[in-house]
Amino acid sequence: MEYRKIKDEDKDEGSAGEDIESLRNKSLSVPLSNVATLGGGSSDRSKWKRKTIVTLALTILTSSQAILIVWSKRAGKYEYSVTTANFLVETLKCVLSLAALARIWKNEGVTEDNRLSTTLDEVSVYPIPAALYLVKNLLQYYIFAYVDAPGYQILKNLNIISTGVLYQMILKRKLSEIQWAAFILLCAGCTTAQLNPSSDHVLQTPYQGWIMAIVMALLSGFAGVYTEAIIKKRPSRNINVQNFWLYVFGMVFNAVAILIQDFDAVMNKGFFHGYSLITVLMILNHALSGIAVSMVMKYADNIVKVYATSVAMLLTAVVSVFLFGFHLSLAFFLGSTVVSVSVYLHSISKLTRQR
Amino acid sequence: MEYRKIKDEDKDEGSAGEDIESLRNKSLSVPLSNVATLGGGSSDRSKWKRKTIVTLALTILTSSQAILIVWSKRAGKYEYSVTTANFLVETLKCVLSLAALARIWKNEGVTEDNRLSTTLDEVSVYPIPAALYLVKNLLQYYIFAYVDAPGYQILKNLNIISTGVLYQMILKRKLSEIQWAAFILLCAGCTTAQLNPSSDHVLQTPYQGWIMAIVMALLSGFAGVYTEAIIKKRPSRNINVQNFWLYVFGMVFNAVAILIQDFDAVMNKGFFHGYSLITVLMILNHALSGIAVSMVMKYADNIVKVYATSVAMLLTAVVSVFLFGFHLSLAFFLGSTVVSVSVYLHSISKLTRQR
Repeated sequence: MEYRKIKDEDKDEGSAGEDIESLRNKSLSVPLSNVATLGGGSSDRSKWKRKTIVTLALTILTSSQAILIVWSKRAGKYEYSVTTANFLVETLKCVLSLAALARIWKNEGVTEDNRLSTTLDEVSVYPIPAALYLVKNLLQYYIFAYVDAPGYQILKNLNIISTGVLYQMILKRKLSEIQWAAFILLCAGCTTAQLNPSSDHVLQTPYQGWIMAIVMALLSGFAGVYTEAIIKKRPSRNINVQNFWLYVFGMVFNAVAILIQDFDAVMNKGFFHGYSLITVLMILNHALSGIAVSMVMKYADNIVKVYATSVAMLLTAVVSVFLFGFHLSLAFFLGSTVVSVSVYLHSISKLTRQR
Repeated sequence: MEYRKIKDEDKDEGSAGEDIESLRNKSLSVPLSNVATLGGGSSDRSKWKRKTIVTLALTILTSSQAILIVWSKRAGKYEYSVTTANFLVETLKCVLSLAALARIWKNEGVTEDNRLSTTLDEVSVYPIPAALYLVKNLLQYYIFAYVDAPGYQILKNLNIISTGVLYQMILKRKLSEIQWAAFILLCAGCTTAQLNPSSDHVLQTPYQGWIMAIVMALLSGFAGVYTEAIIKKRPSRNINVQNFWLYVFGMVFNAVAILIQDFDAVMNKGFFHGYSLITVLMILNHALSGIAVSMVMKYADNIVKVYATSVAMLLTAVVSVFLFGFHLSLAFFLGSTVVSVSVYLHSISKLTRQR
């Protein structure tokens, strides 16, 4: 019921409903009734610019993330506990949000939109995404009984479809036929790009594995869409306030994850066992990526987020050719072609619909 | 210059320019200026029906063609000479066209549109497609010095792109952005569906192989588009007259191919050496497919032909699962998904453009 409330409130705030293409249309001076209340063209252009910057930041941070992971494996140092690292990522994001808030308070003073003390009614929605991610991460341990790691990489692409379905169901923003076609292509293209000679094993996944993969995709899609709903619920609220609460609960739930999964290891070997310079870089990168995700949720939407992370996956592979001498497969070229067409179709879909 | 003449004449005959989607729009009562001169809705519906039937016939015949090939290989009988079989295919098509004409003459009498004696000026264009196919088939022997057979199957998908390019250039019917996106997806999807663990070899094709593959794709695309231009040059001319001339020259050029490639074998072992029941079925199937191709060229276009043969390729694989116990790969599912989205995008593209 809690989330239905958010959704309904969100619908009333129509101005948050437009996305990157609507604004692009606006700048191309196509008349658009749904953004007509937003004000002048220069304000729209600055919003479009902000969306582009956060989207690019997310793409670059996500692709460098994967490169850091490959690098850390190459350096043979992957000995730290993932749950402690996740906890530190949340802590760092929390500290960065607070630092940003402190600066804002100093410059602009404390206002209704940037003050931290909020009502229980408002704060109570923030734990939900963190809880969903916790459950999803725990499930991840069990799915490996049914699927191997490369197979899991392929099944993860179900996220794309679940995000689209939940985005349309929960946020009630209808995707056009062409946007749906583009989304299905994005999923097929990403999967194709990841194909390798052993990929067919994934077809032998037992039904338990499929069910878990689908549940995980739904959990992660739901967490993303729910976060967008929370953040867009009050568009005027400063993003750092919203992030602070999201990340505080992220810390809490990751602390729970340490207790469940790595309590003995942390007790015996210490919290920072196995940490290296690369681990620190990875934590820094994850924290910045996390903030970029929030920004994309606020200034664009989950659809843009999915495109950014998918394109980042392809970028990583191309960069790895130069950094690590990886070979690109024919499947990668074909998948990239399909993803590119998907991005193109998504970008023209709104324009086409209006003709 | 010959072909420019055809093209210009073709442009004057605007009514031949509409395609299957335009007519579908018409039946959905979307106003369409370019078919307004065609007459009543019932005539459009019967034309749409005719296009659908010839397209389905081509799809089914093409997919059963591939199944017959697999079957003939399974039966271990693939000993006949391909050039003699091709010659018989052309002969059979020629005989069938003549038989159809004889019936028409008996029922309707000889008219300007169904009589065979045509001027040199008109007949002289018919040898060109047959000559192009001959050159292409000869090149096929040389390309195997650079590419293996599975690699050649993959490179053959370049036909899709060359047909699109030449269709737009020569027939001057512009494909919309979405139609182009759909066409690129068709090529990527077909290639993905054909991927196997050794497919990456094709990336090591030397530049001579690439050049030959591109030249072959252009020759085959050009032959197709040129045939469409010839057939559509005079829309009122009976298709059997046009086919008769196409197939007569097909016989001539296939006789040349026998002389070039299989003269010794035919002389020593005889013309029908290695023929079996399956060979006869294959010849019958090829002849009917060839006639269906001509029909699609007359009543639809090369774009529809490419879609029909691509979908047939996927159908063949699915049918082979039941007939021969083939296993479908993940790549096949992904490729089929992309092809399906491509067909969908193509079918909605005209509708979208008109809004």
